[in-house]
Amino acid sequence: MSAGLSSQVSRDYQLTLTNFLERARRFFPRQEIVSRGAQGISRYNYRQFYRRVCRLDNALSALGIGQGDRVGSFAWNTHRHLELYFGLPCMGAVMHTVNIRLSPEQIAYVINHAQDKLLFIDEDLVPAIEQVAAKLPGVQRYVIMCEGELPPTSLAPVCSYEELLAEAPENYDFPQLDEGLPAGLAYTSGTTGDPKGVIYTHRMLFLHSFALALAGGFGISEADTTMALVPMFHANAWGIPYTSTMVGAKQVLPGPHPQPEEIAGLIQTERVSFAAGVPTVWIGLLQFLEQQNYDLSSLQQIVCGGSAVPLSLIKAYRDKLGLQIHQAWGMTEMSPAGSVGTLKRSMSDWPAEQQLAQQAKQGLLLPGLEMRVLDESGCEVPWDGETSGELLVRGPWVAREYYRDPEASAQRFAGGWLRTGDVVTVDRESYLQIVDRTKDLVKSGGEWISSVALENALMAHPQVLEAAVIAVPDERWSERPLAYVVLKPDQQLSAEELLGSITAQFPKFWLPDEVTFIDELPKTGVGKFNKRALRQLAQQRPRR
Amino acid sequence: MSAGLSSQVSRDYQLTLTNFLERARRFFPRQEIVSRGAQGISRYNYRQFYRRVCRLDNALSALGIGQGDRVGSFAWNTHRHLELYFGLPCMGAVMHTVNIRLSPEQIAYVINHAQDKLLFIDEDLVPAIEQVAAKLPGVQRYVIMCEGELPPTSLAPVCSYEELLAEAPENYDFPQLDEGLPAGLAYTSGTTGDPKGVIYTHRMLFLHSFALALAGGFGISEADTTMALVPMFHANAWGIPYTSTMVGAKQVLPGPHPQPEEIAGLIQTERVSFAAGVPTVWIGLLQFLEQQNYDLSSLQQIVCGGSAVPLSLIKAYRDKLGLQIHQAWGMTEMSPAGSVGTLKRSMSDWPAEQQLAQQAKQGLLLPGLEMRVLDESGCEVPWDGETSGELLVRGPWVAREYYRDPEASAQRFAGGWLRTGDVVTVDRESYLQIVDRTKDLVKSGGEWISSVALENALMAHPQVLEAAVIAVPDERWSERPLAYVVLKPDQQLSAEELLGSITAQFPKFWLPDEVTFIDELPKTGVGKFNKRALRQLAQQRPRR
Repeated sequence: MSAGLSSQVSRDYQLTLTNFLERARRFFPRQEIVSRGAQGISRYNYRQFYRRVCRLDNALSALGIGQGDRVGSFAWNTHRHLELYFGLPCMGAVMHTVNIRLSPEQIAYVINHAQDKLLFIDEDLVPAIEQVAAKLPGVQRYVIMCEGELPPTSLAPVCSYEELLAEAPENYDFPQLDEGLPAGLAYTSGTTGDPKGVIYTHRMLFLHSFALALAGGFGISEADTTMALVPMFHANAWGIPYTSTMVGAKQVLPGPHPQPEEIAGLIQTERVSFAAGVPTVWIGLLQFLEQQNYDLSSLQQIVCGGSAVPLSLIKAYRDKLGLQIHQAWGMTEMSPAGSVGTLKRSMSDWPAEQQLAQQAKQGLLLPGLEMRVLDESGCEVPWDGETSGELLVRGPWVAREYYRDPEASAQRFAGGWLRTGDVVTVDRESYLQIVDRTKDLVKSGGEWISSVALENALMAHPQVLEAAVIAVPDERWSERPLAYVVLKPDQQLSAEELLGSITAQFPKFWLPDEVTFIDELPKTGVGKFNKRALRQLAQQRPRR
Repeated sequence: MSAGLSSQVSRDYQLTLTNFLERARRFFPRQEIVSRGAQGISRYNYRQFYRRVCRLDNALSALGIGQGDRVGSFAWNTHRHLELYFGLPCMGAVMHTVNIRLSPEQIAYVINHAQDKLLFIDEDLVPAIEQVAAKLPGVQRYVIMCEGELPPTSLAPVCSYEELLAEAPENYDFPQLDEGLPAGLAYTSGTTGDPKGVIYTHRMLFLHSFALALAGGFGISEADTTMALVPMFHANAWGIPYTSTMVGAKQVLPGPHPQPEEIAGLIQTERVSFAAGVPTVWIGLLQFLEQQNYDLSSLQQIVCGGSAVPLSLIKAYRDKLGLQIHQAWGMTEMSPAGSVGTLKRSMSDWPAEQQLAQQAKQGLLLPGLEMRVLDESGCEVPWDGETSGELLVRGPWVAREYYRDPEASAQRFAGGWLRTGDVVTVDRESYLQIVDRTKDLVKSGGEWISSVALENALMAHPQVLEAAVIAVPDERWSERPLAYVVLKPDQQLSAEELLGSITAQFPKFWLPDEVTFIDELPKTGVGKFNKRALRQLAQQRPRR
């Protein structure tokens, strides 16, 4: 976290989220924000949104929250979460979006590591926090974001979000903030060990919002109705809430557990023009739409990312629905947008299938960002579409370090560059394509699963000798983990028994779908598990 | 000019123009830059452009130019000028664009005030510099940007741009620059006294470029072919060269004295999609197109600004050519873009004439900028479309002061705000409309004319008692100056004699078209000339 800036710099106009909040209120007071909740759809406009953010900030001040304090959220995409997205940073506090899909242990870890003073929780997610509350000594108060009365809960002290706001004054003087102050905090699970925190400064989120609104980026403007299907508890919902507010777009927040029926319904009734989510969402929607008729004619742009978008999905949307999927690539460490797979003008003459192949790449880096692709000896590889190397990026919205984790920072950040861990090629049009991952992570439904963490847990079982986890392709989740396990001599163990022993340590979706017992794991020259060989082995296994 | 930043801040990725230059070379190497010169059209691509910028920077280094040095240009919109636009800032020097329309005295003033070490001059503009060279002791060398051999000239020492580049190496290592370093310098003529300099830092120009490329801004993207008809010697050509390079757009540079025939020809043959210029340009083109057939179907957006765009012009383009004029408003002090007059989504249902009236306003402030409209007592006026006040703005690309001019700075800048000198109303949709100017400047063909400067000159004539200059509407130039003069008792003087006495001090276009001799000037309560009364008088005068 950076401290105050020198007086020399403070002369510059500071790039803060308060600018966006004030702009939305003054320029687009009547534009709507639509939020799907447990009790149905609610809607208000930016003027009302602004007033509630003011009430929220008065309430936070009364609760003793001040500049630099971290406050956690544990919530879906709702208008209340959006109020936190602005209310916390604009008063100088830090919005920590806790990923609701983490394991109980990980949830406790990130809240304690962040030192969250308050925790804002959606009503249906209260049980998950009750489960770990005993391990959260630093949380001074729980705030439940419920529609009606406070539900019965073991959390204490506890209060209702709506009561907090109702009791707070409607006028609030936003402080002048330094653009280098932290505004947001999100944790990403890496290859080994605990989740790692990424601080987003006001400056990073301000510039990232401009990038998303570029005509050659995602082109979000006041004319759009945006719907982030990517959750607000993950990587800033790709920045869509901030950008939408900046440009004064209508926002649709799809609420808890949005399923294909709700998604199609919201697009149809609210006339959504811009929607973004991971491939799994779009695969599910496509299957649903093959049996149901909805009017999705308002949809002008679908952004898909989080993991590689199958070419077949882009093609299916184009051919069956007449809709264009734009692939995007990014990382939690990048606020998160990195590249977008729109076509260059010179490609407009290309045959349709060649265009499709190009759109299946991760595309061109957004303006402001820089990249390098390095081979194992640290030399830049040629941009020939064939030679691969590790992708390094830097830019105004790329983190410079992990939060309070010098060891992990040293591994991934150097000289201002972020080592993405992605192995890519770059073609002659400068489009990047991810071909592998340096660390063999599994990416399932847009979320990382650490193969190394799973291996360590499996190998912790007394009867297990060695275990290696690899990613295998999966139509629905992009990838799923597959475990190869070598038992100690003369041991007997079923897959069920083995998985049962690690269930408590991980989110449910982390658990391998298959466990294969083998006699020996292939190794590389330096004695590491040879995952390349394991992947080849997996290709030959019988299909379930 | 700001000095180096603290180490705390230098950790942030620095927002510099070098980022754009490198991006264009790596991502869009084959995109074209087309330049119209005395010998016809020349074209190359961003890769070749980049190499020439490298050569230029090696040549500048060899000539002793270093970080912070100011270097002047006196040139039209050409590829060489574009090379200077990047070459100078990206090596750490400052690009001073001298306005070729200034008077000889003003030209000498700004070059000396800026302390330009070198001066880059278009071949056809050499005589204007020869005229003042004796008054430019600080200029160490003149560089003539000619196609062929160096023309005969009294300038010394002098060399040819192309020879400089030919002799310089093609590889150049661009330095890591601080975003707070000055990149550009332009002078604006104000109400009184000498022109005032505005420094553009790398950070300002970087952020301004993002703003122009916003989908809700001008939306410039890689798919565009841009043509700045606004000159590169004035207010950064509205930032179009920087934005176009950032996004990798094809650029068309219309060269010396572009007339309607050349403009229409370039649009047709180069398939220009985005063009920007002052109303005078578009009025001229419209008249030309009424007699000539050109295919302008590639044109997707016309941006018009610099002075208020007549509603009739927007209507004529819409009705006769099927083209959309977007009004833009800005100031040299704002890099220069401030607002854009595109319609909100809620206005799409409005009757056509109401839409037109809305488009004739200066529009909505770009994201990132803030405004206040203050009445004479310093209170904010209501945004009701009727109450007027002076417009104040601030934001990431708004200057904080004039260059080396604390007195003028104190008059126009306070607390981070720029007093624009424009009197505006803001309607309920938050669109601003300029209704007057606080200082009674005359704006002719997009250029300011100082009425006070003219008055002082006229009153310097021995036979003149008092003189007041006001703006009168003019179809071609938007406004022209009209002088009211009171002679001393018993004197005789013709308009021709009087104007002849001030010709040498001003650009030709500054001279009033009409001089009216009257017995007495109306005065305000505090004894100032009552220009409001004079304007009423002017309305009643017989039409010429």
